Amino acid sequence: MPIAKRATAEFIGTFWLVFGGCGSAMYAAAFGDIGIGLLGVSLAFGLTVLTMAYAIGHISGCHLNPAVTLGLWAGGRFEARDIPAYIIAQLLGALAAAAALWLIAQGGPGEVTGLASNGFGERSPGGYSLVSGFSIELILTLGFLLVIIGATDKRAPAGFAPIAIGLCLTLIHLISIPVTNTSVNPARSTGPAVLEWLALGDGGAAGQLWLFWLAPLAGAVIAGFVYRAVFKAD
Amino acid sequence: MPIAKRATAEFIGTFWLVFGGCGSAMYAAAFGDIGIGLLGVSLAFGLTVLTMAYAIGHISGCHLNPAVTLGLWAGGRFEARDIPAYIIAQLLGALAAAAALWLIAQGGPGEVTGLASNGFGERSPGGYSLVSGFSIELILTLGFLLVIIGATDKRAPAGFAPIAIGLCLTLIHLISIPVTNTSVNPARSTGPAVLEWLALGDGGAAGQLWLFWLAPLAGAVIAGFVYRAVFKAD
Amino acid sequence: MPIAKRATAEFIGTFWLVFGGCGSAMYAAAFGDIGIGLLGVSLAFGLTVLTMAYAIGHISGCHLNPAVTLGLWAGGRFEARDIPAYIIAQLLGALAAAAALWLIAQGGPGEVTGLASNGFGERSPGGYSLVSGFSIELILTLGFLLVIIGATDKRAPAGFAPIAIGLCLTLIHLISIPVTNTSVNPARSTGPAVLEWLALGDGGAAGQLWLFWLAPLAGAVIAGFVYRAVFKAD
Amino acid sequence: MPIAKRATAEFIGTFWLVFGGCGSAMYAAAFGDIGIGLLGVSLAFGLTVLTMAYAIGHISGCHLNPAVTLGLWAGGRFEARDIPAYIIAQLLGALAAAAALWLIAQGGPGEVTGLASNGFGERSPGGYSLVSGFSIELILTLGFLLVIIGATDKRAPAGFAPIAIGLCLTLIHLISIPVTNTSVNPARSTGPAVLEWLALGDGGAAGQLWLFWLAPLAGAVIAGFVYRAVFKAD
Repeated sequence: MPIAKRATAEFIGTFWLVFGGCGSAMYAAAFGDIGIGLLGVSLAFGLTVLTMAYAIGHISGCHLNPAVTLGLWAGGRFEARDIPAYIIAQLLGALAAAAALWLIAQGGPGEVTGLASNGFGERSPGGYSLVSGFSIELILTLGFLLVIIGATDKRAPAGFAPIAIGLCLTLIHLISIPVTNTSVNPARSTGPAVLEWLALGDGGAAGQLWLFWLAPLAGAVIAGFVYRAVFKAD
Repeated sequence: MPIAKRATAEFIGTFWLVFGGCGSAMYAAAFGDIGIGLLGVSLAFGLTVLTMAYAIGHISGCHLNPAVTLGLWAGGRFEARDIPAYIIAQLLGALAAAAALWLIAQGGPGEVTGLASNGFGERSPGGYSLVSGFSIELILTLGFLLVIIGATDKRAPAGFAPIAIGLCLTLIHLISIPVTNTSVNPARSTGPAVLEWLALGDGGAAGQLWLFWLAPLAGAVIAGFVYRAVFKAD
Repeated sequence: MPIAKRATAEFIGTFWLVFGGCGSAMYAAAFGDIGIGLLGVSLAFGLTVLTMAYAIGHISGCHLNPAVTLGLWAGGRFEARDIPAYIIAQLLGALAAAAALWLIAQGGPGEVTGLASNGFGERSPGGYSLVSGFSIELILTLGFLLVIIGATDKRAPAGFAPIAIGLCLTLIHLISIPVTNTSVNPARSTGPAVLEWLALGDGGAAGQLWLFWLAPLAGAVIAGFVYRAVFKAD
Repeated sequence: MPIAKRATAEFIGTFWLVFGGCGSAMYAAAFGDIGIGLLGVSLAFGLTVLTMAYAIGHISGCHLNPAVTLGLWAGGRFEARDIPAYIIAQLLGALAAAAALWLIAQGGPGEVTGLASNGFGERSPGGYSLVSGFSIELILTLGFLLVIIGATDKRAPAGFAPIAIGLCLTLIHLISIPVTNTSVNPARSTGPAVLEWLALGDGGAAGQLWLFWLAPLAGAVIAGFVYRAVFKAD
């Protein structure tokens, strides 16, 4: 499959991830007494990946996340030369999704004050520190990549990886939304942060983006090297 | 399989979708402190499709939705000559389900004031505008059809499509119930709207039906052509 | 596999269904602000079937429900001569589970006032009438058996039936707990009703048991004959 | 695969189980009006097992639990000589996870008062007695092992066991968090109990650890022998 088509799939898939995950948080999480809460948002994020992994897994591998792309490279599963195209497509998809979410929210009942961006310290939903945020993002992305690389190993049962990977993202959100609003995905963090800055004039999330690139990428690369060193099939 | 049997399967499946999805909303969503909320309704809609896709997928393909039928035609997966029978069966199934829900609600504790119909503007659960409603219905049906066409592609793992497609409908509801009460399915919109008009004397939802035909069908047809143009196997 | 071993599996599986489903309702549904609610109970009932279907499906077929046993007979999938042993094992499993739930509840914080029995009219959780209760039990068991027979059809993808069937029971509970506390299973209704009568001196649920035998069995048998007449492979 | 690599996988997997399950309880269960509640915690525990079973099932079998290791031995599926390495790795993983949860909680908004340890009597979340706690832990571990051994039987459909087993742990939590905070896993009980003792100076959970070894191990061994005696393939 040519790289242009694979990048198109990554654009669409990352749009779906940010539109579905952040959209459920913005529109439905706290909807009166029947809102979906953090459990519903966790499920939504996971299902964006589960659904797209079955839909476009055979096109691009369905990374939807620069940390996944880099972690798979570290694990020996992805060519270095394709990394830039994938990450650019992922960022554009995340930005487009954040823009669409903002436009739809314009027609909603109240003023739009945020786009479900990530944060730590004063911007952490539960008031968790930079150190706590960095630690949990690194640990959870490390685990996420171990699941991704393990579940797509030749020795794992075929066809089930999208379930394992999608529900792993649900699990990760169940743990960590109160800490950082959960990233483990620099593209997912960047889209809403940039839109909040450009459309809402609030650069707070953009100023914390460095952590949501550094911690997930570090965790992902560690996972890739660990799996290759310890668990690789002979 | 003869078209009459396939249309019978579509009738049964669409009955199940509207009975289960709208029924969970009517009877269980706001049941005291332990109601299932929008998360439970989202799960119910998705599970109607997941369950029926395993039960009748081998009979009719389990569309249960005129947008799915049209989108699969646009994607080159469905014969044009079978479209009318499918859509008529879907509409009759949705109408029968709405009637059954209304009859059962007659024996319930309070007056029946609605059948979980779709709406925008003043009829949007969260007060979202026509433009927001049209946009989200189009985007989500587009994504829904990409998942349906992608997950049933020969290159995708066999047997998993009902999980991907059913949980995709759950995801779509997690995002958009507050905006339009979530349609992405003209038959699901039409059944309750017609029953509210005939049985409850309230034509409000019927007067907004045009949007819940136009936006889902447009999104579905775009998805079908896009998938065929960009991602089709050679 | 000899009938004694298959009946043992049915005993264990039906114990698991009633212990897990009714237990989650009794101990966890309304646990302060963090209780699992009707959504959690719905998930629990479905997961008892999903888990046991993978565990003992290859032993007994994992019916766990007289309506399933009778519906599969009507659908031409089960031998008439094995029906009594299956139903007796199911009833004993349900009774044993209700007894265990009652014993554990003795060590709990409050007086035990019920065992999650089914009911209509004054005993319906939401105050729904006999007619509403009968209708919804018949419709939902009919749909349940169509899913069971369809998902285990040779033409359906192999191995996925436990997911479809288990989550179908979750869906059914999402719709109908407020109406009848959801049965679609005479054994599940009988265990708690008999224990409430013997252990708590409350014969109310026992007096309504006729409906929770009649409606599910009728729906199941209709489904079996319909599937065989309309959808059977040639 | 050498025992050192398999034990490493058990360490990682048990870390993931305790970090994800107890972490979701500590950080997200009671987060204002949108917390994930006991339903979210139940889902988190189950998904830790589902995800790791696909990721490392082909490495170590993904036990993550001394009761699973012993039950599989009783069922004739695991070599006695590997039991000590597995259990030590599981305990170390659970301890490391509890330490990480405690460190991250240090950067949180309030004082850390517990690490989601298990308990009965005065330490039971719902005030259930020792006898109730022992009974439910034994019954649920017995059922858990029947599901594990049955779903991994050669006669069960291949590849689905992680779904059955992971969601079985979810089911078990849906029933029993109010009773004992749910163990069915001595390692999961030991990690938080020891950290509460060492880091928080609270030895209460450590003093009740005997029950969370005895009851799960007893249930698991019974299940192993029962399955082998009654249901084993000839």
